[in-house]
Amino acid sequence: MSEFQPKQERSAHTRAEILAAAQTAFARSGYESATVAEICELAGISKGAFYHHYPSKQSIYLELLHDWLADFDRGLLALRASAENVPALLRAMSASFPAIFQVAEGQLPILLDFWVQAARDPAMWEATIAPFARYYALITDLVQDGISEGSLQAVEARQTALILVSMGVGALLQGLLAEDSAQWGTVGQDGIELILHSIERKPEER
Amino acid sequence: MSEFQPKQERSAHTRAEILAAAQTAFARSGYESATVAEICELAGISKGAFYHHYPSKQSIYLELLHDWLADFDRGLLALRASAENVPALLRAMSASFPAIFQVAEGQLPILLDFWVQAARDPAMWEATIAPFARYYALITDLVQDGISEGSLQAVEARQTALILVSMGVGALLQGLLAEDSAQWGTVGQDGIELILHSIERKPEER
Repeated sequence: MSEFQPKQERSAHTRAEILAAAQTAFARSGYESATVAEICELAGISKGAFYHHYPSKQSIYLELLHDWLADFDRGLLALRASAENVPALLRAMSASFPAIFQVAEGQLPILLDFWVQAARDPAMWEATIAPFARYYALITDLVQDGISEGSLQAVEARQTALILVSMGVGALLQGLLAEDSAQWGTVGQDGIELILHSIERKPEER
Repeated sequence: MSEFQPKQERSAHTRAEILAAAQTAFARSGYESATVAEICELAGISKGAFYHHYPSKQSIYLELLHDWLADFDRGLLALRASAENVPALLRAMSASFPAIFQVAEGQLPILLDFWVQAARDPAMWEATIAPFARYYALITDLVQDGISEGSLQAVEARQTALILVSMGVGALLQGLLAEDSAQWGTVGQDGIELILHSIERKPEER
């Protein structure tokens, strides 16, 4: 890194390096066992530099989760802009499962760690699981839009949203634990298709 | 415990106490952090007595998993004996989700731990995840039976089985992490119903 780089840019660069190192350390040792020392060694920085950027190991953890969710949001927005109706959007989302599952594979242990931490620690639950409520609401709105536009039958929007999410999460978890993650992507995709088949209003019925 | 109890019975009793103590310790501290000393204290036994019954913490862990799966097998056999056809059996299985999810709630952190351990350690993967392949095969056979008896359409049996399992697992995981586990049982149940609605052969089509 050039010493002529603006200070703000250097700082962002260091934060990104710490995040990448932490992700490696968490995946290798697990969240509980990973230490700040290990992260510093991987990032090639001092503990002082670490604590200049992050108050704690947990703060990095939460930033990683936040970054992933932001990625997901961006992808969803892009799909929504181009999909002709709600079933088409749900199909486009599920079509990306195989690729998403493959990316998630390398981050598997961290993803599971998020859940384990959340199960044991109310503060972590608040920080890591509560945000998912936003996704339940988001998919519920989507289903409601589908009903309004006439592309979906008059189903119970929230229950249907939770069913769709469960399908994706169930296939994802098993894909993470299996050797053939991408294969489980097609399971999630075909599962969403079977559900859509039950709730979609056929063009001739609209 | 009476000193007149046969030795074998006393031994079984001690093993059961160790298992219960281990389950409490794993749930409280997590599998990695729980120690044999903690389990011994909870069970009120010496380390010598512990190692007389179990070679390691991991061996208890695997016995707990084995016991749960055996319970599940017994329940499945009982349902299979009484169900009139495959869709009825799948409905009966999913109708027990709310109750199962509520039981699983107390064991949540251990269940997640199984998955985390399996993700990090190939030996644990072999011991904890590989047995699930048996369930994939079992549900695949069920779907195949449904096709043969004419109650299900001519779907791809294995892919459909993996979809059904994913629906249950996805609702279970979210139920474990949510405050209202039983509520997620109805999500799994309604999800199975939507899938069945797509793959069932209606009586008039049979």
